[in-house]
Amino acid sequence: MSDDIQDALDKIFAIDSALYQERGFQRRIGYGERPALLNIDLANAWTRPGNVFYCDNMDVIIPSTQALLKAARGAGIPIVYTTTAYDVTSGNPSDMGLWHKKIPVELLQAGTETCAIDDRIAPLDDELVIVKKRASGFHGTYLAGFLRAHDVDTVIITGVTMAGCVRHTTEDAIAEGFRPIVVREAVGDRVPAVTEWNLFDIDAKFGDVEPLENVLHYLENLDNSG
Amino acid sequence: MSDDIQDALDKIFAIDSALYQERGFQRRIGYGERPALLNIDLANAWTRPGNVFYCDNMDVIIPSTQALLKAARGAGIPIVYTTTAYDVTSGNPSDMGLWHKKIPVELLQAGTETCAIDDRIAPLDDELVIVKKRASGFHGTYLAGFLRAHDVDTVIITGVTMAGCVRHTTEDAIAEGFRPIVVREAVGDRVPAVTEWNLFDIDAKFGDVEPLENVLHYLENLDNSG
Amino acid sequence: MSDDIQDALDKIFAIDSALYQERGFQRRIGYGERPALLNIDLANAWTRPGNVFYCDNMDVIIPSTQALLKAARGAGIPIVYTTTAYDVTSGNPSDMGLWHKKIPVELLQAGTETCAIDDRIAPLDDELVIVKKRASGFHGTYLAGFLRAHDVDTVIITGVTMAGCVRHTTEDAIAEGFRPIVVREAVGDRVPAVTEWNLFDIDAKFGDVEPLENVLHYLENLDNSG
Amino acid sequence: MSDDIQDALDKIFAIDSALYQERGFQRRIGYGERPALLNIDLANAWTRPGNVFYCDNMDVIIPSTQALLKAARGAGIPIVYTTTAYDVTSGNPSDMGLWHKKIPVELLQAGTETCAIDDRIAPLDDELVIVKKRASGFHGTYLAGFLRAHDVDTVIITGVTMAGCVRHTTEDAIAEGFRPIVVREAVGDRVPAVTEWNLFDIDAKFGDVEPLENVLHYLENLDNSG
Repeated sequence: MSDDIQDALDKIFAIDSALYQERGFQRRIGYGERPALLNIDLANAWTRPGNVFYCDNMDVIIPSTQALLKAARGAGIPIVYTTTAYDVTSGNPSDMGLWHKKIPVELLQAGTETCAIDDRIAPLDDELVIVKKRASGFHGTYLAGFLRAHDVDTVIITGVTMAGCVRHTTEDAIAEGFRPIVVREAVGDRVPAVTEWNLFDIDAKFGDVEPLENVLHYLENLDNSG
Repeated sequence: MSDDIQDALDKIFAIDSALYQERGFQRRIGYGERPALLNIDLANAWTRPGNVFYCDNMDVIIPSTQALLKAARGAGIPIVYTTTAYDVTSGNPSDMGLWHKKIPVELLQAGTETCAIDDRIAPLDDELVIVKKRASGFHGTYLAGFLRAHDVDTVIITGVTMAGCVRHTTEDAIAEGFRPIVVREAVGDRVPAVTEWNLFDIDAKFGDVEPLENVLHYLENLDNSG
Repeated sequence: MSDDIQDALDKIFAIDSALYQERGFQRRIGYGERPALLNIDLANAWTRPGNVFYCDNMDVIIPSTQALLKAARGAGIPIVYTTTAYDVTSGNPSDMGLWHKKIPVELLQAGTETCAIDDRIAPLDDELVIVKKRASGFHGTYLAGFLRAHDVDTVIITGVTMAGCVRHTTEDAIAEGFRPIVVREAVGDRVPAVTEWNLFDIDAKFGDVEPLENVLHYLENLDNSG
Repeated sequence: MSDDIQDALDKIFAIDSALYQERGFQRRIGYGERPALLNIDLANAWTRPGNVFYCDNMDVIIPSTQALLKAARGAGIPIVYTTTAYDVTSGNPSDMGLWHKKIPVELLQAGTETCAIDDRIAPLDDELVIVKKRASGFHGTYLAGFLRAHDVDTVIITGVTMAGCVRHTTEDAIAEGFRPIVVREAVGDRVPAVTEWNLFDIDAKFGDVEPLENVLHYLENLDNSG
């Protein structure tokens, strides 16, 4: 993103933050005691160049997610991946519902390499990959029930896209009663500026946007003696 | 089921129906205009002898479902199958959630022949199979969104088990705003009497229990000119 | 309920239990560590004679619920009541959805004494009353999110009716990842036998049906030092 | 909003739109045949100066909503309002869940004038007001079931805030299978620029952002002979 765009955004964010804080928004939700790691749509369609869904900044997002996976596995917390994929991508009735009327989800055929999780951050055998049909990892999936059954109170969120699946997942997470922590270095999008404004909105209203370093420190110091 | 058990149930149903009707229950919800066919858990674990999930009466349920599939395909309405299957069936955290603490869902490994739809009623290529984790076909799945996106107002329900997945699916269907029609000859269970009492409860409160003949007549006379 | 009906049911339950246990059903889900008390539809329409929704056995259900409320308040756990009531009970479009096509919910006008919680078990000021539109306390309400936000892992369930709202609530509770404990003396219905067969189904598959004495003992010995 | 901020945003939107369109995003979902009007949080807390939730631009939003209400009533379509309000706004456990940890929802006491719909756009007696607890009008409410029971396929969305409740509602609407149409003149927010970037994101991915004139034309020409 060019410097002048970033400057313009920074100016807006400063004005908006002043107003939000004056009015009691932008509070901190904080970390809970029993987190899960939730990796949104880090599948090849989004992580590998050449696909229309491809997102920028994978040279930061992938290593950040690798670091989080290592810490999460070390802490023994639940780890979930999502991907977005469809069984019926042509004709009607399709499991795309209405979404192909806005974006090209007809290119996301279930069971293809396109929709598989990027192997640089491959799930282990007992880590779940939830195939979702909508933007949110919670919508139309068993994610909320799974997290509650395993006593999770906090979701550490990575992935793409900020204007789509990560944003909607974060909104649903707090609505469902989980503390959302969005890891700044581990999220992104495919067009300029939308990562910044969506992180701004989320931090103001729905979850805490935290630097990778803080999240790693939290995971590495979890008391899992319980 | 032995005759004296059936007699006892019939006596109870007669007493209860009299009271329900006096109080304004047991109304008819009726058929809508845009149905879908929903086949619950007619996978090998439930339809083939030798499995702990096996249900009785498959010599009636399977041909009834075949007849419904033929009519539904003829009418060009949406057709959905569900199965229940898990990716992590041992250890923790599992997508079984808490359900293995009540019933042996640890035997339902995703991707196995056990959890595949019975090939006597095999789905066509463009018919969806939704892998669910809970009893209801709606809970933690994209079924409601799918049905809405395709303008469905009525769900014709078949499958097993009446005390479990068919019952919960029917309750959710009316709650979500769809008219549930449960096909008497196409549903069942694995222990005596539970089919009868669950059909009784459903017909009193949640959906219409209809004979196969009526449902076939409805499907064969749908106006799909619209 | 007459003795011969009870005898017939007992005979069925014995046969079914033998088969269930042979096949690995009827397991115990057990109590968790952070319960909530959930009282389903103990409003005047269901608890006071003369209403079409009136249920039997209130001389046992009300004192049992009083004892549970006392223990729950002593333990400082979350307490939630539900009632079922509608804002638009005539004409169309109504918040009854399709349910008045099966049962007389048009009689349940929101804000009336009919739909208020029975004052023998009146909620305290900071105890929630959730007005639901469907059978389940979870369906179309914020109950699951509320329970998750307050770290609940177990729901102690009372109320009516067993064939309707208590059954659907229990099925949803385990699906959402909460341990359902249904208190035998604190639940009921309005027609003979349906309480018994719904408790049977629930205990086989969805939650533990427990005697009041056990539940009181559990609540009185909770470790809430955490 | 100052001109230079608008210029900066316009520049970003132009770059992003070019990339989106090249990749097949920013499609039109279009109007369906059976719409409902959904007014999000146009209650006094958001519409009347002096409240921390107050939003800008009410001199355009209110008349635009009045025009939509008139057209919707003329067409006889379902109309729903939401407000956000809480029964327990202090202490714990509260129906605020975790949201007060981010924004000052503790100021939104149910039953107060603060949370009542602005009387310039007052609901008629048979128009529903749904009291929600989370950002989305769908989350933890019976909205989706209500809309489906009344055969709605399209939701015309007005209200505030764009970065919060309107955005989340729109995302959920398409996920649930409804066509979201967001009316540009009838939505807003309380800090600069967030209305613009959220409309941009929505139009790219979740629903069509349409001018008031088009929506009024659509409502006035609905064929409701059916």
